[in-house]
Amino acid sequence: MTGDVMDRLKQALGPAGWIDDARDMAPYLADMRGIYPARSPLVARPKSAAEVAAVIKICAEAGVGVVPQGGNTGLVGGSVPSDSGDEIVLSLGRMHKIRAIDAANNTITVEAGCVLADIQAAAARADRLFPLSLAAEGSCQIGGNLSTNAGGTGVLRYGNARDLALGLEVVLPDGRLWDGLKGLRKDNSGYDLKQLFIGAEGTLGVITAAVLKLFPAPRDVRTAFAAVPDVAAAVALFSRAREAAGDSLTACEILPRIAIEFVLRHLAECRDPLAEPHPWYVLIELSTAGRADDLGATLENLLAEALEADEVTDAVIAATGEQARQLWRLREGIAEVQKHEGASIKHDVSLPLSRIADFIHQASAAVGERLPGIRPIAFGHLGDGNIHFNLAQPIGADGEEFLERREDFYRLVHDIAEAMGGSFSAEHGIGRLRRADLENYRSTVELDLMRRLKAALDPRGIMNPGKLLDGG
Amino acid sequence: MTGDVMDRLKQALGPAGWIDDARDMAPYLADMRGIYPARSPLVARPKSAAEVAAVIKICAEAGVGVVPQGGNTGLVGGSVPSDSGDEIVLSLGRMHKIRAIDAANNTITVEAGCVLADIQAAAARADRLFPLSLAAEGSCQIGGNLSTNAGGTGVLRYGNARDLALGLEVVLPDGRLWDGLKGLRKDNSGYDLKQLFIGAEGTLGVITAAVLKLFPAPRDVRTAFAAVPDVAAAVALFSRAREAAGDSLTACEILPRIAIEFVLRHLAECRDPLAEPHPWYVLIELSTAGRADDLGATLENLLAEALEADEVTDAVIAATGEQARQLWRLREGIAEVQKHEGASIKHDVSLPLSRIADFIHQASAAVGERLPGIRPIAFGHLGDGNIHFNLAQPIGADGEEFLERREDFYRLVHDIAEAMGGSFSAEHGIGRLRRADLENYRSTVELDLMRRLKAALDPRGIMNPGKLLDGG
Repeated sequence: MTGDVMDRLKQALGPAGWIDDARDMAPYLADMRGIYPARSPLVARPKSAAEVAAVIKICAEAGVGVVPQGGNTGLVGGSVPSDSGDEIVLSLGRMHKIRAIDAANNTITVEAGCVLADIQAAAARADRLFPLSLAAEGSCQIGGNLSTNAGGTGVLRYGNARDLALGLEVVLPDGRLWDGLKGLRKDNSGYDLKQLFIGAEGTLGVITAAVLKLFPAPRDVRTAFAAVPDVAAAVALFSRAREAAGDSLTACEILPRIAIEFVLRHLAECRDPLAEPHPWYVLIELSTAGRADDLGATLENLLAEALEADEVTDAVIAATGEQARQLWRLREGIAEVQKHEGASIKHDVSLPLSRIADFIHQASAAVGERLPGIRPIAFGHLGDGNIHFNLAQPIGADGEEFLERREDFYRLVHDIAEAMGGSFSAEHGIGRLRRADLENYRSTVELDLMRRLKAALDPRGIMNPGKLLDGG
Repeated sequence: MTGDVMDRLKQALGPAGWIDDARDMAPYLADMRGIYPARSPLVARPKSAAEVAAVIKICAEAGVGVVPQGGNTGLVGGSVPSDSGDEIVLSLGRMHKIRAIDAANNTITVEAGCVLADIQAAAARADRLFPLSLAAEGSCQIGGNLSTNAGGTGVLRYGNARDLALGLEVVLPDGRLWDGLKGLRKDNSGYDLKQLFIGAEGTLGVITAAVLKLFPAPRDVRTAFAAVPDVAAAVALFSRAREAAGDSLTACEILPRIAIEFVLRHLAECRDPLAEPHPWYVLIELSTAGRADDLGATLENLLAEALEADEVTDAVIAATGEQARQLWRLREGIAEVQKHEGASIKHDVSLPLSRIADFIHQASAAVGERLPGIRPIAFGHLGDGNIHFNLAQPIGADGEEFLERREDFYRLVHDIAEAMGGSFSAEHGIGRLRRADLENYRSTVELDLMRRLKAALDPRGIMNPGKLLDGG
């Protein structure tokens, strides 16, 4: 990259709009997993879509790679540049305006750099719910959520990020701005262009703003924690809950005993909500905006019937919001305590609900056979068929050696998921981490279609090079 | 088209797989609106995706245009060939197998030629709901529903056809088959290719099968018919209903008095459910799969509060399923009785909910100014912001002369909708009828992106030529 290009970028961005000091750039170059070394001559921090467009235009002319970055909380190395030093980072963090809330239309218009929690809070102030919710919500940004089609705990009822977007504003790889900020529930006026950019991980353009759906704020939320004898019983309980509660079933998470043990061991504030240990647990949340729904009765009846049917062996219903938070803490603590148990190899697979029990059984057996003592922690969004199939190293084993076998386990576990009609990446995406899987599991036809899209929208390959697809 | 190509097509399809007799072809060439004369040398009726692929391959090599056709119930001339005689029709009607139902996964796998009502019935037999529902459901086919991203009466709670598809099988414009028949709620493994084909009106490939979402079957349904003083009150009632009933609000339709008068005049079985005439009406449906929800109480309280707030002036709640059907008949009868009132010019616009009242007010005034005596019938899916703004000719006017002014009224009404952030085509699509609107209302950037997509997937322009985009 020439000094001239750098000068033009700095000029376009103004003095507050860029960083090139190594220490200041460090957080923008730090991959969440800590496995991808990154270098860059410049972090661009535009404050408007027009500035984003100016940056992209300069980079397009000069053939400079651009890595769009939101909260940089992704888990697949998709939001940091390579170590070539040839790519700039385009941080959307200064574009954090909530442009409009239309309560009658149940929409909110936000800039890409808005932190997810801030959008949730703005919706709540208008007595509405923005249902996207995930562990990183305090720092992840909506542009990144949309670019990665984020999932999280609200998917069961409200869908993925894709399902929550009505309109987008996007800067294209040639620097043109596409204004698609409509807030319509129905619009069949040509190809639905926003679908191209959602989940494309910044490889087809930069999302700069979005119109998002809002929902009625829940008036009642009930939470239960149920012990189940096995995964099949957990799936049966999910089906029963969906039958009994319909749309009020807003979360259904599965946890194995080992996850509870990890959490109890490492998080002082947590305690086992049940008297005895059980092999598996299901966390159920019902919520409703309807005033006349009796969620308490629904939940009690459902659990009573499940106990009767031996799908549930013990259960507790949160009596207060604080108790509900404690139950959720058990679930949410899993990701953070795993590091205290040594190295882990993580998978984020999805399956048809009807194959979840088979998958956990087969995959657990297969990894145990490959490495005796390995500790599978299969937990996650049961209702979405999304299992975080994480593998903790055997007790006392060497963590580094364990991690060196990463690719081997990826292939083993992903083979099983894909053979069952599942996917090797449910919500985390491809980035750099899963590129080999994409090549391996997607058909020639699929890869060809993806490359054609990339070539049609970004013929020079400047957008997030080397992410999602090969080359770049 | 050469005789050689015809022979190869017939060979590939087998004796039962094609029609070339003019009389037998007639229904395949008849456009629903009766305004597009069509000619074709052949109707291909493949019975498998492999046969579809063979047909497309032959046509791709020969540069012959292919018009995919489902139930041929579209309203924009998108499913019949031009009158050039150069394009074949590809009817999916023989591919009507339901390949699988997975009740645990809440999915159904169907071939493109399945009639929508048959899919609804198959879901019901498995104690599930397939919520896509529209007037043509007895003859429209799911491949067409997906290709046009069909809307209908279930959109408020369950979304458009796009939202109901988890996986697709598609024959590409070069004859290759893409098997994307996964039944997953979360799958972020590369670009979401199915989004390309949904709503593309057969211009990017032929959908041959789909995996669709199922939902719990509703256990209770309540229906009310409320008189409201004006459109603003109707919108306020919708907001109130959504607040009170949350996800249980599954339909909210608006009807003007003139629509009720038309229906009462021409449908002998219908009667006015209220004692006095009122300027506007709202049809509300609540439904739930939850066992402990008291929809009756919710609906009564909601209407009582709305009466108190002067949003509602009178209302009736259906006491039986038969009464509910009678109320729905008033709504569903509107489209069919309009022809008895002379010629009509029809619009299918969408608006942000917050602009619906403004739109109906402004558009009604504008058309009345342009042609005194014109009778606007603004009805439709209030909860989705989707208004069928239909114009009946002035009483005693010449129908032909009235229809000749069609383009003039399209522009007038669409200008108002688009200026309010709405869309000129909510659920009917583009086809041939709205191509000029697409050119007019979509930006240069949008049209360029659409043309790039078309060129990337169908470089020879053989798929449904002249539909959606110009050229072809």
